[in-house]
Amino acid sequence: MTMTDDTICAISTPAGVGGIAVARVSGKDAIMLVDKVWKGKSLANAESHTAHLGTIVDENNQAIDQAVATVFRGPRSFTGEDVVEIAVHGSRWVQRELINLLVRTGCRIADAGEFTRRAFANGRMDLAEAEAVADVIASTSRAAHRIAMSQMRGDFSRKLTHLHDQLLDLASLLELELDFSEEEVEFASREKLLDIAREIHTIVTRLASTFATGAAIKDGIPVAIVGETNAGKSTLLNQLLHEDRAIVSDIHGTTRDTIEDTIEIGDTLFRFIDTAGLRQTDDTIEALGIQRTLQKITDAHIVLWVIDATAGTDAIGRAAQQIMPKLTDEQQLVIAINKTDHPDADVSATSALLDSITNNVSAIIVNISARQGHNLDGLENALIKASGTDQIPEDQIMVTNARHYQALVLAADSIARAIDALTAGISGDFIAQDIRETLHHLGEITGNITSQDILTTIFSRFCIGK
Amino acid sequence: MTMTDDTICAISTPAGVGGIAVARVSGKDAIMLVDKVWKGKSLANAESHTAHLGTIVDENNQAIDQAVATVFRGPRSFTGEDVVEIAVHGSRWVQRELINLLVRTGCRIADAGEFTRRAFANGRMDLAEAEAVADVIASTSRAAHRIAMSQMRGDFSRKLTHLHDQLLDLASLLELELDFSEEEVEFASREKLLDIAREIHTIVTRLASTFATGAAIKDGIPVAIVGETNAGKSTLLNQLLHEDRAIVSDIHGTTRDTIEDTIEIGDTLFRFIDTAGLRQTDDTIEALGIQRTLQKITDAHIVLWVIDATAGTDAIGRAAQQIMPKLTDEQQLVIAINKTDHPDADVSATSALLDSITNNVSAIIVNISARQGHNLDGLENALIKASGTDQIPEDQIMVTNARHYQALVLAADSIARAIDALTAGISGDFIAQDIRETLHHLGEITGNITSQDILTTIFSRFCIGK
Repeated sequence: MTMTDDTICAISTPAGVGGIAVARVSGKDAIMLVDKVWKGKSLANAESHTAHLGTIVDENNQAIDQAVATVFRGPRSFTGEDVVEIAVHGSRWVQRELINLLVRTGCRIADAGEFTRRAFANGRMDLAEAEAVADVIASTSRAAHRIAMSQMRGDFSRKLTHLHDQLLDLASLLELELDFSEEEVEFASREKLLDIAREIHTIVTRLASTFATGAAIKDGIPVAIVGETNAGKSTLLNQLLHEDRAIVSDIHGTTRDTIEDTIEIGDTLFRFIDTAGLRQTDDTIEALGIQRTLQKITDAHIVLWVIDATAGTDAIGRAAQQIMPKLTDEQQLVIAINKTDHPDADVSATSALLDSITNNVSAIIVNISARQGHNLDGLENALIKASGTDQIPEDQIMVTNARHYQALVLAADSIARAIDALTAGISGDFIAQDIRETLHHLGEITGNITSQDILTTIFSRFCIGK
Repeated sequence: MTMTDDTICAISTPAGVGGIAVARVSGKDAIMLVDKVWKGKSLANAESHTAHLGTIVDENNQAIDQAVATVFRGPRSFTGEDVVEIAVHGSRWVQRELINLLVRTGCRIADAGEFTRRAFANGRMDLAEAEAVADVIASTSRAAHRIAMSQMRGDFSRKLTHLHDQLLDLASLLELELDFSEEEVEFASREKLLDIAREIHTIVTRLASTFATGAAIKDGIPVAIVGETNAGKSTLLNQLLHEDRAIVSDIHGTTRDTIEDTIEIGDTLFRFIDTAGLRQTDDTIEALGIQRTLQKITDAHIVLWVIDATAGTDAIGRAAQQIMPKLTDEQQLVIAINKTDHPDADVSATSALLDSITNNVSAIIVNISARQGHNLDGLENALIKASGTDQIPEDQIMVTNARHYQALVLAADSIARAIDALTAGISGDFIAQDIRETLHHLGEITGNITSQDILTTIFSRFCIGK
């Protein structure tokens, strides 16, 4: 890729006012340029990984702020270039003025994701690892964070590189055959080739199959709460939003508006999809709302059906007629029998009816009282079980990135064609073409083969300063 | 003061998501406690001011994040204690989890301002310097920042300490006299005492007199924009809010809602006070609005009177009758003759009338066209001139803190009483009492004499993590 040799700068800490803010400067002139605005012991001879107290001064020797500058000399830095991190007081004015001053001194304001892009360009990480940096920053649950960390550490990349290298060896032998095509030799054992192609197909398909769950873990497992009006859906949602969690959100400046439907249960983020209550209605607009509710069920991984245990079996039958036909094989059904503490509740009749209704589908049924907060733990465990996230092995690699998923699907397609060709005994040049395509798609993920346009798109999704 | 010997932690960077976030850990066990969650080379033997790459791991050896830990060994640290700054990816989850982990390991979440309070307790800064840290963080203009920086660097404190020490010397001699009171000796020369008391009175009074301007610079110089309806006040305000400034605010995540009335012109922040347009009215509610407008004039340091040059001299006369009697001697009047580019504008008649109206007051008159953006520079310069901020010498100490102002006023009172007593030849013990009071009030500012309650109030205004 084209390398830029200018020096970039940006505030890397979150936007806003705080105790301290950190500006990151990276490039071959990073240390020299920071030294120009630095009053204190010169950083020119500072050892790598050392922190220095000094003052940031402008062209007129006016102090901008007291600061701590930490020097990281390339290649032992995040970007692989010389990096200076300048910690200043986190006022708006200081942050703005420091960046303005650095720009006047000769730095350029970094594009979104440009530090990570440079780390990629300098071979500090491959593309899949670099993309994971953005995922780590965006993670809001332990499960999403773990997947992103694993990808950032290179677990996914190592797996792909291993497949890629195996395939490349065989492809080289195939290409060699083509060079000697007149002599009808077989350098590449067809049997061995078929074995490896099948193994790669299995692994690539398995990786691709983790995408639905992986993406759901990243964005929150979608749960549609359905049930008749007055079944207690809102009360339940409020109960699931434990007060302590809400406070944690407050500390981090999050407004309830934007996250009110996502709840971390255990290690997993769930995204609750609000639905209108089901009921018989002659009102056209309300009927439309109920249609939309039923539509939303299809988008969910889990359908949480809340039942009013006091409403009688007729009501359950009515709701079941609307809900059950909408369920797909991939969806998990969790049924919460609510208001079980109510004197009018007929829990046993309700349970018996539900058992017959769910005869043909797997469903987890829990008795709760949303108002009293009874057995919410049981419901939370049921949701975790239904999500399947507790069944994912620690070292399972999950695909969370749509771009990777697409490349894996294409790789699976082309290796499948190679397998067909091998099985049919088709000649080497067709097989070589399919294998080259497979290599290409695998290489796209780790960035061995990637266009500047795709890189620009990928890194533009990053925040400034990373 | 009571010292706490526990180890505190907090996220010191602004709340929210960003490339990196920094957790600060301070206390005698800081290094030992961070080492417990640290995978990488142990920090126990790390030299001060060195940065180390490693991984934060929880009790189950699960990686929380890759991190850079920078070790600052006391007393060469911000707080004077051992400090570790941990830079991690700035995700909400990582930030929350890191603090939770540190707390489980034995740290306590820091109170607001507690790091700075410890710096004060450990003699790294006096109280006025510590208070300035919060002012530096809150500064939104160069002028406010410069005052806060000067105070943080100790310019104000050194001045006060110098006065305090001079006075203390004389007080000691006076106290000595009292011990030998039966012998009628005078250890403290009354003449010298009077000289110094007068000098202190002059300096303390002068410092206190900077408070009105200092506080206005910190919060924004209040400017009341007045004038008849349709004179162009809103257009002018929008023009003063240059687009580039608005963009700068956007970058920093500021919403226009909260700052729409404050504008940095040159180095100074101005706070424009929105007023209803003046006009003759029979409508009771509108008349009330105009009354409030006239009231707001009294709160302003600068009154910016916008005149429609096309409205005729009668209109100017009417407005003048409402505005001019409200002006106080301390207020500056800036008159903007607007719409000077309009064919109906009668600039010379308007100017002539204004010259006669402002005959007895100092006013700066500028011709502008708000709509065309003509001569806005001239108006901005007039506002800076009227604010007087361009006349403040570089090294002028400004008081911006109401607590300091109050203490200075009380110190001026007590030293004035001492001067009276000295002049009247009153006996030493009364004078000693007045001087002790003066010392007390000066000591309150630098924190030599301060109660725990006052300290708690002061530091509770800080943000968490500083």
